[in-house]
Amino acid sequence: MTQTTKGPLSGVLVIDLSRILAGPYCTLLMAEMGARVIKVEPPKGGDDARAYGPFVNGRSTYFASVNRGKESIALDLKAEADRAIFEKLLAKADVVVENFRPGTMEKLGFGWDTLRKKFPQLIYASASGFGHSGPNSKDPAYDMVVQGMGGIMSITGNEGQPPSRVGMSIGDIGAGLFTAVAVNAALVHRLKTGEATKVDIAMFDCQIALLENAVMRYTVEGEIPGPLGARHPTITPFQAFKTSDGAIIIAAGNDGLFVKTCDALGRPDIAADADYKSNALRLKHHHRLEAALESVLKGNTTAHWLAILAKAGVPAGPINNIKQALEHPQVAARNMLIEVPDGSGGTLKLAGNPLKMSAFDDPATRRPAPDLDHDRDSILSFIGG
Amino acid sequence: MTQTTKGPLSGVLVIDLSRILAGPYCTLLMAEMGARVIKVEPPKGGDDARAYGPFVNGRSTYFASVNRGKESIALDLKAEADRAIFEKLLAKADVVVENFRPGTMEKLGFGWDTLRKKFPQLIYASASGFGHSGPNSKDPAYDMVVQGMGGIMSITGNEGQPPSRVGMSIGDIGAGLFTAVAVNAALVHRLKTGEATKVDIAMFDCQIALLENAVMRYTVEGEIPGPLGARHPTITPFQAFKTSDGAIIIAAGNDGLFVKTCDALGRPDIAADADYKSNALRLKHHHRLEAALESVLKGNTTAHWLAILAKAGVPAGPINNIKQALEHPQVAARNMLIEVPDGSGGTLKLAGNPLKMSAFDDPATRRPAPDLDHDRDSILSFIGG
Repeated sequence: MTQTTKGPLSGVLVIDLSRILAGPYCTLLMAEMGARVIKVEPPKGGDDARAYGPFVNGRSTYFASVNRGKESIALDLKAEADRAIFEKLLAKADVVVENFRPGTMEKLGFGWDTLRKKFPQLIYASASGFGHSGPNSKDPAYDMVVQGMGGIMSITGNEGQPPSRVGMSIGDIGAGLFTAVAVNAALVHRLKTGEATKVDIAMFDCQIALLENAVMRYTVEGEIPGPLGARHPTITPFQAFKTSDGAIIIAAGNDGLFVKTCDALGRPDIAADADYKSNALRLKHHHRLEAALESVLKGNTTAHWLAILAKAGVPAGPINNIKQALEHPQVAARNMLIEVPDGSGGTLKLAGNPLKMSAFDDPATRRPAPDLDHDRDSILSFIGG
Repeated sequence: MTQTTKGPLSGVLVIDLSRILAGPYCTLLMAEMGARVIKVEPPKGGDDARAYGPFVNGRSTYFASVNRGKESIALDLKAEADRAIFEKLLAKADVVVENFRPGTMEKLGFGWDTLRKKFPQLIYASASGFGHSGPNSKDPAYDMVVQGMGGIMSITGNEGQPPSRVGMSIGDIGAGLFTAVAVNAALVHRLKTGEATKVDIAMFDCQIALLENAVMRYTVEGEIPGPLGARHPTITPFQAFKTSDGAIIIAAGNDGLFVKTCDALGRPDIAADADYKSNALRLKHHHRLEAALESVLKGNTTAHWLAILAKAGVPAGPINNIKQALEHPQVAARNMLIEVPDGSGGTLKLAGNPLKMSAFDDPATRRPAPDLDHDRDSILSFIGG
């Protein structure tokens, strides 16, 4: 039962204490890259996400999605016998990942200062709401809390409407991605020097890092950015426009593309307007420019304009719903919907692995997420217990 | 001029052909982790992002933000002498990163099939709109295009309103993060086996991978998710509520937190309602539950409720704008606003590095982004040219 996907992390053993989404998303990526990931779950109920819908035959597909390809053992980290098993696992492991509230591991006697002495090879990765330092370190956090506190909600949504959540869990998944970046870098460092390190990722820090140019718009210009609907804050035209049957996105990211756009729409006169000569000018006059472009675009369908803009080499696209996105031919061509057994004779379709590498296969199926404690026997035999 | 931040990637040399945001965000993370990153830019104008505002004394702060700590050399990859310099750089490099449209590197004579033979140590990382395979491979793409095509806009924004862009460039930055995960994993693989690999990241693939539970809601339940404003799609209550002076986010991610929430609001009767016993039931009756909670929350201020919920251990928070987010004490405590010289005697404040590791310092300042060709002499001397 130690069969894993072959990948750049083949041979890496990850002990995964993490629950719900941020930590599990990090270890999902590691499993997709070939690491062996052993989830250590509390005996009563396991990972909280096992209770999140939608369900298929009583099993959480939310859990299935981010825990496919992993193994599970149920251990009570407050019970002596189970603690001994846990330590045997850590002795063999390269990385331990947890997303408890700071202080939890110390209370269990498994804080970094303890583990680094007992297991000098072990990289310790923590993903928490606010990190292991600072005045808010021990505050509880979930995705929505850091989306709200970190500012991203204040710049997402429709102008004049209440702030909107980002449609996916950018708080958790952002932190999961940064944790994976850091853990892989820590593996590089350990391979080169033998030194293991603690990785301390805060969901809140990650939100700040993801804000990108909104930070400079405030620190440089003193402007407090608000939600812009479907428009880019500093590039014009780079946004959604109405067509006769829906909407189209046109992303004219430089002067050349702007000229091509106007030509393709049969309106070179718009590009010739002195008010639109540079991106700075287009941004300044964006209301008038948008109205001019939209008056043309409303005269025909999204498909009509997409064909014309494609021929002209202008980046453009439709606004797809989830069904349309997943049915896009490129999704199948890139194996971005994979299948796992659903545990009841059927299959689940889940988002595939975007980490494509020439040296490794990208299989179309995966082992399912484990039931709680599913791999106990093979794991015990692995540690010689 | 080869001074870099010390980090887990110290000693790694990255040749960076990438422009604008997706590739540069990947190499920014690598520079923050100690890699030496040499930007190779076209002599006329360099990286497109040098033309994106806001500007300070004629220099782009957009560019400054994602290119701090890197070096720059201007090379015309179609001119023989410059091609020779470029090849000498590749001979010394660990990684080359590019985000051209697929086919561009092949036209230049620097495609993976050529480079892997000449430079067998070289990891080749590409971040493109649609990847190096599939029917849409060569289509142009910018952030907004893949945000629209990949489905995330269809689930972001306010109910009943047009789709909204995610407030930051999730198309580019998502791809940058996945590229960094993959490149670091490829470095692990090369350290262990000596084999270099090509990394082929598609912005569109990354959007699909980021959709997370929206994928299952469609593939399992056949539901096409829409925008939900500030509410979580499958967890209740996990959303924004109105208070007497603004809004508050309450993230009661499990049954215990829901009971604690109702107790803290002085309304244990709400938790006792049989309709709200499980998350599935709360989701089913969310309109009624939200109204019940909001009628209580509207009776006092956000600060009042935050203090009460903090004492009860319920994850909750305000909806901060960018100014409030950056002024949060945790930002300073975690060094998440760093400074770089602005090239005119002042300093820029930029988002810091969320990749905190115990083995490395996290300095409060960085070298500025390079002017075009700024490091030519030291780079030529490095390659012995």
